[in-house]
Amino acid sequence: MAQLDNLAVVVHGINDLRLEKRPVPEPGPNGDRVAVEPGVPREIDEFCKIGRYNLSPTIFFCATPPDDGNLCRYYTHNANFCYKLPDNVSFEEGALVEPLSVGIHACGRAGVTLGSKVFICGAGPIGLVSLLVAKMMGASQVVISDLSTSRLEKAKELGADFTLQTSKVRPEEIAQKVEGLLGCMPEISIECTGVESCIQAGIYATRSGGTLVLVGLGPALVNVPIVNAAVREVDIRGIFRYCNTWPMAIAMLASKRLNVAPLVTHRFPLEQALEAFETTKKGLGVKVMLKCDENDQNP
Amino acid sequence: MAQLDNLAVVVHGINDLRLEKRPVPEPGPNGDRVAVEPGVPREIDEFCKIGRYNLSPTIFFCATPPDDGNLCRYYTHNANFCYKLPDNVSFEEGALVEPLSVGIHACGRAGVTLGSKVFICGAGPIGLVSLLVAKMMGASQVVISDLSTSRLEKAKELGADFTLQTSKVRPEEIAQKVEGLLGCMPEISIECTGVESCIQAGIYATRSGGTLVLVGLGPALVNVPIVNAAVREVDIRGIFRYCNTWPMAIAMLASKRLNVAPLVTHRFPLEQALEAFETTKKGLGVKVMLKCDENDQNP
Amino acid sequence: MAQLDNLAVVVHGINDLRLEKRPVPEPGPNGDRVAVEPGVPREIDEFCKIGRYNLSPTIFFCATPPDDGNLCRYYTHNANFCYKLPDNVSFEEGALVEPLSVGIHACGRAGVTLGSKVFICGAGPIGLVSLLVAKMMGASQVVISDLSTSRLEKAKELGADFTLQTSKVRPEEIAQKVEGLLGCMPEISIECTGVESCIQAGIYATRSGGTLVLVGLGPALVNVPIVNAAVREVDIRGIFRYCNTWPMAIAMLASKRLNVAPLVTHRFPLEQALEAFETTKKGLGVKVMLKCDENDQNP
Amino acid sequence: MAQLDNLAVVVHGINDLRLEKRPVPEPGPNGDRVAVEPGVPREIDEFCKIGRYNLSPTIFFCATPPDDGNLCRYYTHNANFCYKLPDNVSFEEGALVEPLSVGIHACGRAGVTLGSKVFICGAGPIGLVSLLVAKMMGASQVVISDLSTSRLEKAKELGADFTLQTSKVRPEEIAQKVEGLLGCMPEISIECTGVESCIQAGIYATRSGGTLVLVGLGPALVNVPIVNAAVREVDIRGIFRYCNTWPMAIAMLASKRLNVAPLVTHRFPLEQALEAFETTKKGLGVKVMLKCDENDQNP
Repeated sequence: MAQLDNLAVVVHGINDLRLEKRPVPEPGPNGDRVAVEPGVPREIDEFCKIGRYNLSPTIFFCATPPDDGNLCRYYTHNANFCYKLPDNVSFEEGALVEPLSVGIHACGRAGVTLGSKVFICGAGPIGLVSLLVAKMMGASQVVISDLSTSRLEKAKELGADFTLQTSKVRPEEIAQKVEGLLGCMPEISIECTGVESCIQAGIYATRSGGTLVLVGLGPALVNVPIVNAAVREVDIRGIFRYCNTWPMAIAMLASKRLNVAPLVTHRFPLEQALEAFETTKKGLGVKVMLKCDENDQNP
Repeated sequence: MAQLDNLAVVVHGINDLRLEKRPVPEPGPNGDRVAVEPGVPREIDEFCKIGRYNLSPTIFFCATPPDDGNLCRYYTHNANFCYKLPDNVSFEEGALVEPLSVGIHACGRAGVTLGSKVFICGAGPIGLVSLLVAKMMGASQVVISDLSTSRLEKAKELGADFTLQTSKVRPEEIAQKVEGLLGCMPEISIECTGVESCIQAGIYATRSGGTLVLVGLGPALVNVPIVNAAVREVDIRGIFRYCNTWPMAIAMLASKRLNVAPLVTHRFPLEQALEAFETTKKGLGVKVMLKCDENDQNP
Repeated sequence: MAQLDNLAVVVHGINDLRLEKRPVPEPGPNGDRVAVEPGVPREIDEFCKIGRYNLSPTIFFCATPPDDGNLCRYYTHNANFCYKLPDNVSFEEGALVEPLSVGIHACGRAGVTLGSKVFICGAGPIGLVSLLVAKMMGASQVVISDLSTSRLEKAKELGADFTLQTSKVRPEEIAQKVEGLLGCMPEISIECTGVESCIQAGIYATRSGGTLVLVGLGPALVNVPIVNAAVREVDIRGIFRYCNTWPMAIAMLASKRLNVAPLVTHRFPLEQALEAFETTKKGLGVKVMLKCDENDQNP
Repeated sequence: MAQLDNLAVVVHGINDLRLEKRPVPEPGPNGDRVAVEPGVPREIDEFCKIGRYNLSPTIFFCATPPDDGNLCRYYTHNANFCYKLPDNVSFEEGALVEPLSVGIHACGRAGVTLGSKVFICGAGPIGLVSLLVAKMMGASQVVISDLSTSRLEKAKELGADFTLQTSKVRPEEIAQKVEGLLGCMPEISIECTGVESCIQAGIYATRSGGTLVLVGLGPALVNVPIVNAAVREVDIRGIFRYCNTWPMAIAMLASKRLNVAPLVTHRFPLEQALEAFETTKKGLGVKVMLKCDENDQNP
């Protein structure tokens, strides 16, 4: 699953999607165009009740074993977790709500707000959506780091204020370079690689009283400069998937101020699905799109 | 003072500004270009200690009696409340940090975040900066209302998604129209007029669990549908000036994504100061700028 | 319903309570002893998703028309909203979780924390549970006011630090007296009467930057000193029922540090149910308890 | 300094304490009895402005090199950081405000509230004050662990609901035992030892969505199960000293509901100061009190 996280599927035959009872607004003759939030809690347990349903152990999560996914002809999903797409939001944009949601949840847990300075470690798909979202939430400056110069170029294209190529750089040095670029330490760091030295850099780089959000996942045990974080009250917070992000993402897409088009680097018709999966497995590009409607193969 | 709140002064002779001891970074040969936050607490009292220094009764506030203002040749201000302007931020932009701050404080207290739907009541200077700031903080759609169509035109120019002309409309009807335009009730309303019927409309309009921020000030006692607000858990929060907004505002201006130029509708050289004050007293335009440097009379 | 809010029912035949599927822990041979949270959302809508299910318009609320109540022989309730009572919590204590919940939700929305000074307006059942809860949450001093000296005596018994008899006292004067008793203005006021002059007193009394919580409901439109609240950033927040309070209340009852016994002033066997309802309708006492098990008629 | 953190000094000759200008209330003829908060920011910098002055690099901190302490005949301290003691709070209680403050700041950052289940790792002085404070803030049940059975006895005396002797127990096992004792995982863990295996236990033990607060300081780099914390959204937060805790602590002491007497295990007259320091250096007892007033040698 991890290798495939840059694949998004535009569901064909959305008119076949059977909504459960109580679909409050009347659906059109061909059904509603919706974006599907894959995680649905099976019970209103203690986590749901406090608004953190992503943490519920009862959750059904589409395509995470043992729960089956929606690579099938007919698929039923809880109507409360199907969100109508406004007319001015395309299916392709709708398919990007899921990856955007990771960035939204990360930036939300980080507390990005007006004027925030942000350091993002890793310019892969998740780093890039975090960049997009941080800017939308009012971040004034974002530094993004990566080993790959081509990824950093993409980040520049998507609005990064500064990029940092980080091969063979010690964590403390990365922190210094980030401060040098911003003119101050960032209040927020978002770690998207899971690499030990990057987590360390994230701690050293973050301003006292700030927050490091861990998005990337690496080895189970990691050596962390915990005293440095503790005595400077740098909070370390992880994220698990997302929660309450679909309405935000759709609202931003509908406002036309969030341009996600550059995230899609490959498009394949449904017949070439295997090739699409191979492309994403190889880690090529950012997002690989499977276009299910033969009359709608463009962005 | 209230009538004059759309006048901003670009301080001339900034090199004469004497900083107090401990000006951490070395100032340039002509001093630093700074934006001055007018309120400075005289003591670290209970309000300062919790980060709400604007509420401190010990505050010195430049130009609010009994505290003298800075319409004088030499003016000394606490260095901790002078903020350096980056090279790419003009004096004129620096002079707009103060009005922007009101919008930042209002939107901050309102909790504007990614995807927020916002209703702003009143398209005067404060309504307009609140509009600008709400969009910068990620609001997806903003409705703004006013009696004046010319003000609403200005609001459109500054990015309002919807405008609402509200003469002779009952509060409940305004609420309905706002919901109609947005397709849902806004989570946030920002009331910038102080008029009783507008405060009422702000309560009726706000979604359950949302927030109404009171910025405009009217009569001391106002008739309010308090039960409607209470049982729908619509919080009512006022603002007093601003707190911790200068760094945010300057960071946004430096990022060049916040265009405040349309806010300035009049510019006068220092010699025509009286005319400038008369213009603002008449309530003409949005912001009236007094240009103190004869070599810098343009935006 | 309003007149009857001081009646609590100890459900008889709890072993008849049929739990829905997935009752995670194995129930005992006679079923589990549970406390029932009356409000159950019918859908996971936007309010549920953010942890504020009490605001959901889809909610089923036991005994609020059009929803039937549980004055019947057999009653089915969503298992997720049935909370097991620990062995050391009696049925009578379990029946008091509902009124306690109002106090918990009020104090939670008020932000009561360690060392808070609190002013409670009204020493009826809701005022008294708010008092109990505020103390449990760490409030250092609570002033409670009422017209009735006998209610104030009860408040003293339940832990009020100061009482204030308020007949024919102007709102501003009440505020002054509260400040005099506490030695400072309270950060928090909790208004439990709904009376206009009391809401006004609540605003005047609350410290700048503090919170007034509205629990009591009076007339739809109320004259409020809104400017006084706004410029001192005193937040005005209502409550609607409760949300996420059952686990807290049960945990506190199980810890044996919360003594709710003094709240119960009358007890009737099931056969005298009519008399019990009459008693509560007359507004006598604090809580009137209907004891359904003939072998368990004592506290 | 670390070895001496269980020594508190009751300042003699408090009437010699010279207050700086603007001592708002008139001091008595012998001066005011005050508790002194040792950290005073020298500037209103960015940290002070947001209410986190403890993080200010400009801070003066009494007795932390290079800042001299108050083991001297005359000592001057910023009046804003001297807090008047109510008549019913003794000097000895006043001297315990500092250690209480560590517990208050820890529990505050942890978000302890009504009904919280809390796991405290380490029953030394800091663990014990955290226990006291957690209970005062409404925690329903606290488990405390330590190697030493005598420390655990003390914890029992101070109100711990459960104690756990933890020699040679693996971190995962400790977590299981904590869950077993509480009947559920605690939302909050407070780590007071700084030992690697305890930090690990703290992460494993904490419920999804909860918080681990790091109070104890150990080696700079620690091996942490960061993925376990991240994907369960267990926040890791450190504390640096304290912030805004004096008023809370004094209010609680004045309310007479917080009994700190058991924390003081040794008392020495001023003449035996050396012996007092030796006692504390040996790690004997909990708090060692130096009684400066020869007429007041008792609690």
